[in-house]
Parts: sequence; C-alpha cells; structure tokens
Amino acid sequence: MNAEIISIGDELLIGQVINTNASWIAQKLNLVGISIKQITVVSDEKQHIKEAIDLASSRAEIILITGGLGPTNDDITKITLCEYFDCELVFDYWAFGDIEELFGQRGLPVTEINKKQAELPEKCFPIRNTCGTAPGMWFDQNGKIIISMPGVPFEMKPMMEDFIIPKLQEHFKLPNIFHKTILTQGVGESFLSETIAEWENSLPTHIKLAYLPSPGIVRLRLSGQGNDKAQIGNEIMSFVKTLNSKIPQYIYGYDEDLLEEIIGKLLNAENKTIATAESCTGGFISHKITSVPGSSKYFKGSFIAYSDEIKTDFLGVKKETILNFGAVSEQTAIEMAMNVMTKFNTDYAISATGIAGPDGATAEKPVGLTWIGIATRKGVFAKKFLFGENRERNVLKTSIQALNMLRKQILEEM
Amino acid sequence: MNAEIISIGDELLIGQVINTNASWIAQKLNLVGISIKQITVVSDEKQHIKEAIDLASSRAEIILITGGLGPTNDDITKITLCEYFDCELVFDYWAFGDIEELFGQRGLPVTEINKKQAELPEKCFPIRNTCGTAPGMWFDQNGKIIISMPGVPFEMKPMMEDFIIPKLQEHFKLPNIFHKTILTQGVGESFLSETIAEWENSLPTHIKLAYLPSPGIVRLRLSGQGNDKAQIGNEIMSFVKTLNSKIPQYIYGYDEDLLEEIIGKLLNAENKTIATAESCTGGFISHKITSVPGSSKYFKGSFIAYSDEIKTDFLGVKKETILNFGAVSEQTAIEMAMNVMTKFNTDYAISATGIAGPDGATAEKPVGLTWIGIATRKGVFAKKFLFGENRERNVLKTSIQALNMLRKQILEEM
Repeated sequence: MNAEIISIGDELLIGQVINTNASWIAQKLNLVGISIKQITVVSDEKQHIKEAIDLASSRAEIILITGGLGPTNDDITKITLCEYFDCELVFDYWAFGDIEELFGQRGLPVTEINKKQAELPEKCFPIRNTCGTAPGMWFDQNGKIIISMPGVPFEMKPMMEDFIIPKLQEHFKLPNIFHKTILTQGVGESFLSETIAEWENSLPTHIKLAYLPSPGIVRLRLSGQGNDKAQIGNEIMSFVKTLNSKIPQYIYGYDEDLLEEIIGKLLNAENKTIATAESCTGGFISHKITSVPGSSKYFKGSFIAYSDEIKTDFLGVKKETILNFGAVSEQTAIEMAMNVMTKFNTDYAISATGIAGPDGATAEKPVGLTWIGIATRKGVFAKKFLFGENRERNVLKTSIQALNMLRKQILEEM
Repeated sequence: MNAEIISIGDELLIGQVINTNASWIAQKLNLVGISIKQITVVSDEKQHIKEAIDLASSRAEIILITGGLGPTNDDITKITLCEYFDCELVFDYWAFGDIEELFGQRGLPVTEINKKQAELPEKCFPIRNTCGTAPGMWFDQNGKIIISMPGVPFEMKPMMEDFIIPKLQEHFKLPNIFHKTILTQGVGESFLSETIAEWENSLPTHIKLAYLPSPGIVRLRLSGQGNDKAQIGNEIMSFVKTLNSKIPQYIYGYDEDLLEEIIGKLLNAENKTIATAESCTGGFISHKITSVPGSSKYFKGSFIAYSDEIKTDFLGVKKETILNFGAVSEQTAIEMAMNVMTKFNTDYAISATGIAGPDGATAEKPVGLTWIGIATRKGVFAKKFLFGENRERNVLKTSIQALNMLRKQILEEM
C-alpha cells in the first residue's frame, strides 16, 4: 500500500519552517504497513496544489495533505479541494458546535472569520479537530483516499492517531505488522552494534532491525510482518527477551516509554518524592519531570543554582568546596544533591553541574564536562561525563543521563 | 527565477531523518532571489528520480538534488544522472587527488570503493567537496541548471555557500528579493488579522503577507521583489513602520529574534540580573533563559516550587495567602516574584503559578488558568491568563508570555 504526502505552505518553501509533519506522518504510516512513495512540498497556489494531487494519485492510493486550512486569505486548500472535487462549501453545524465550544472555553465569542472555518466541501467526510478550529477532510474518489489536515502539528497529530490511521487500516484491510522498540541509553550506536552483532545476525530475514539514534538515546526497532499477528508478535518478543539478557545495563524501556514517565511510575508506586538541584541544565531536568501529568504527587521542587552565590548561600554548598574543587566537580555535585534532598525533605534528589558551553572552559575542564549526582536516603554519589561541544545537546544529554541514573538507583533500592 | 529541490533517500520517506537540508537550501536561495517552486522527496529508485527531474525541469530553471552519492550500492544518484544525461562515468584525477588527501589526513589508504567516488558523469562540471569524498555535479542543459550534492549537511553546505550560490547569481543575473518578518505575541491569528485588515488591504500586489502562527506567537512575513533592492527594502520597511505604530503592544521583535535573547541583551546592556520562581512551568522559563550562551552573566537562579510546602517554607509565600486565595492566585504570584527577587538579590524576577492540567482544576479554577508575576525594584504585579487544555502548550505559552511581560517591563523602566 502506497501513500504520498503533500505539504502546502510558502513558509516551507522559503525554509522558515522545517517539514517535521511529513516525517512524523511517514513514521506513523510505516508502522501500519503503508509506504511513502513521495513527499511533495508545494506553494499556496491552486493550480500547483491540483497538479500535485493529480500526480500523487497516479502513484499512490492514499494522499495526505497538510496545511493551508487557517482562517486567513492566504489559506486556500479548502477552496482548492472544492474545485478539485467539483463541489460547493456547505456550512457544517456539527463543526461549528466544536468551534463555539473552543471559543467558549476561552470566554470569547466566535468571530466572523472563524465561523467560516465550519464551511466544508460538500463531498468530504469531516474529521473532528479537537485542538483547533479547522476540521480535517476525508475524500473517497475512484478508489483513492485523499485526506486534508491542518498544518499545525498538535492539531494534525490527534487527527492522525485517533481517526485517520484506524480508518485507513479498516478501509484497506492492511496486513499485520508487529513492531517492538527497545530503548537504550548510555551507549553509542557503533559500540552497541558491535556488542549485539551476534544477536543481530541470528535474526531471521522476515524480522528487520533498525537503529534509531537521537541525542543520548539509541532505539532499536524490530519489525515483522505475517499472517498471524500473535505468532509474529511472540517470535519478536522472544528476540527481545534474548537481547534484554545480553545488554540489561543499557535498556531502560520499550516503545513510547519516556524516562520521566518511568521514574514517575516508580516513585508513585513506592510513595517516594524527588527534588533537583541544577546548574548547567538550567531547569531542564525539572521541566522533564514536570512534563508528566500528575508529577506534583512526587515532585516537590528544584533549586536552579546558576551562580556560585546561589549554590553556597541558598543551596548550602560549602564555600571551600567551590574554592578547592570548583563549581564543576564531584564534590559540588554531591553537596548539591544531598542538600536539596535534605532541605526539601525528599527521598531522592538529582544534581547536575557542568560546562554547557560555548564559554566557561579551562585547560582541565573542557566544554561538555558534566558531573551528575544522585542522592538517596541510603547515600550519595556522582559520576563524570564528557558530552561534547554543543550547548543544547549537552543540556539534553545530561538530563537524559541523570534521569536514567535515578531510575537505576530507585530499582536498586527497591 | 524558480528552483526546485529534489531530496533523494529512503530514510526521509520512512521519517527517520527530517529534511532539514531542503529548508536550509530554500532559505539560502530565497536570500538571493531564487524562489523554490517545489520540494520533492523521492526514493533511491532510478525511474522515480528521472521522472522527478523531468517534472521539476518543466516548472523551474534550477534543480538542486541532494543525497544518494555515497559509495555503497544503495546510492544510485550518479549512475541515474549518467542515464538521464546520456553519458558515461569518467575517472576524474582532480577529484581523486582530493579523496587521497582526505584519507591521508586520517592516515588511511584510499579503498577501492572510495576510489569509485572519483568517477563522474562526463557531461558534468565537478564541484569540489572539501569535507567528504563525493564531489558535487553541475549540469547545464537546454538552459536548465541541474546540480547534484551529497546529502550529508556538513558536506553540502560549504558547496552551496562557496560555489553554487555565487555561480548561480552570476549565471542568471538575479533580481532582488526582500523579506521582513514581524514577531507578535499575546494575540491570536484571527484577532490579529481583523485588527490589521485595513493595513493588510493597503499592501500593493507586489508585496505579499504571510501569517506564520506557533504556540503563543504569530509571525507576519512581508516579501517583495523588485529591480532595485534598496527601493523594495525601503517600501517594505515603511509598511513595517506603519504596522508598528498600529500594534506596538504585540510586536516584540523581527526576523530570527528570540524573546530569551532580547531579554538577555536588555539585561546585559543595563547590567541587571534576574531570577525566576516557577510552579506550573516547572523550570521551563529558567530553561529558556539559560538556553542563551552567556546567560550566566545575568541569570542567578530559580526556585521551582511545585508543592505548596516549598512555596511557603523556602520561597516564603505566606501560609495565609495560600489558605485564603489558593496557590494559583494573584497574591501567590506576587509573593513568589517578590520573594525570589529579594532572596536572590536580583533586579528582576518572573513568577508563574497555574493549573497546567489535566488534573487540579476546580469549578472556579479551570485547567489553563495561570497567573504570571513580574517583580522589579520599582514594584510588582501579576496578570491572569486562560491558556487552554493542553499541558505542554500551557507551559510553553506561559513561558513565552512571561518573557514578553518581562521584556516590556524592562523597557518601561529604562
């Protein structure tokens, strides 16, 4: 089964916006056995859009279109689809109800321009937008499915996940594909590949392995296709089990697991609490922890101690410690973690102090040098890391590493 | 002058790699007056690549191709271009010299597979690759320029900047294009559109306006093309000036400006410092501020007070305040901002307390209700916002709103 993605928007063609929508859609469709034949980015121009749909229809059964559904004059996708499918815009009371509700929640009346968002091409089946005013559209013509969605990622994604993908699976009776993704942390792609070479070579040809690296994390995805979904699933899971026995130290979770969610579940289950004391990460660990709904049950708070003065005067790091060992040192990381745990009266604490860059490096302490501390009621320790030159990646890698160190420590003490 | 970009690679079509190359190339070409008509992502398949080149040639004068130039069997761009232009691969001694030098620097001999990288289509003009083994190719046929480059960004970018762009400018005596992006905060796309309708209608047809919304921010991009670069630039800037006089309360910057960078520059210029006291944002404001290199000069630290107990015992919010008004209230926001400023001895402070969701709402206090406080040496105030249902967006919108409130306050006190 082939699909094509058409992304509409001048902002993509002048390079102001990166086309992350297309990658996300491609990923999701691949997971259910739909291959993407082509991704086409076109301008907000009627003729160009119509030609792109025609060409895509000649190569694929499914066309997914994003963008151009806003309420302003430069958004012309809806009217272009009317012309393409030779039909009129009609007012949809059901869609208007959703728009009214959205505005009501914000205590605002629906403006004239937003009322027009409820007008939809007569020949489409409307797709509910739970996060915005522009409904999606599903057209079924000559055996081809043509779908139009908003370009705003957080409006498009729930439409895809909640409605479009299940409906495509049903409509085209798609084959059974089983995926399992193993999440590893603390090991690079090439070293991991050497370590698991024997296991990788033992995989049968109908099970494929993909390496998916991102900063601090390497995901290993196993995919198999078969007539019997349970059978292919069992087969893949037995390879996962073998892998788990070979590299347990690197595996922290599976599929969509997030370290911050895993930690949340562990802390909740144990009825334990946590705090952080951050320097180089500037609140990013705390942000990660609190990105989980319900984290207020176990997360009490943080000290972001960016200046030495805050580290000593409020976090209680000894002046001599910073004087003798520096703010980026094992000793400082240990005191930061211990002190925030004691002060905030939590069961666990994370600390991070490092040189995020580009400034602040010395001969002995290069950019990327980071100490991460973990304090628990049973003790405290810190580990040293060298993450590299890039400020943004250093913050990200430090946070991921710190969360995984905490996860391991909680498990060890359970 | 129109160009098209063709990106070759299965990794793009399964969504494993985001097509940042195309955005980067589009940006660079727009700056010199070349418009991108279409971006096409195709698979590593000869017939598909040739069809894409044919179609692109029917719409544009310049075709830029990236990807598929590696030394392995799945890289077929070079052989496809030979077929397309009906010519043979010939060994290029000049290209081979570069490859030898690259391997020499690493102390390695040139392998057979890499020697093949020096074979190039007879009809191309080779483009030097200073960072890798695959040379670029420049074809000039029937008035169309077709260029092939490696997909590795750090190999492709120097080719574009050092050779391709200057050569295109010279080859096609290019017109002048001018873009200006106005950044607004605190106003939705549709309300903004209604507010500036008169101004928008006054724009001449050769100046185009685009709305580019993202959470909390709407960017307005004006683009114009003309024979005289200074003239079109002046014309656009006079429309920017008019707009600025109509909606000064919403405009915080231009082009690539970031709120956290603007604030950093203001604080640096005034030699002032800042701290934050965050509840619902969980450290995200602090993270934004510290994402700017050199922020340690003006950012001292933060209290992330997620639990009421931390708010009272460490941040010094009065117990009666929380008892009488609640943790999400004007009074709490004000005390949080005042207290962190006083304790950390800074010139400014931001506070945020709200119901990020999905839990924690009451009849009077819905999800999305947020109070943002700003404290300065001259006083303190807090404002109320209703951001909506989505936890992630609430955090993002609160942070952007808070940073912009601080920006306005600093400017007011200057």
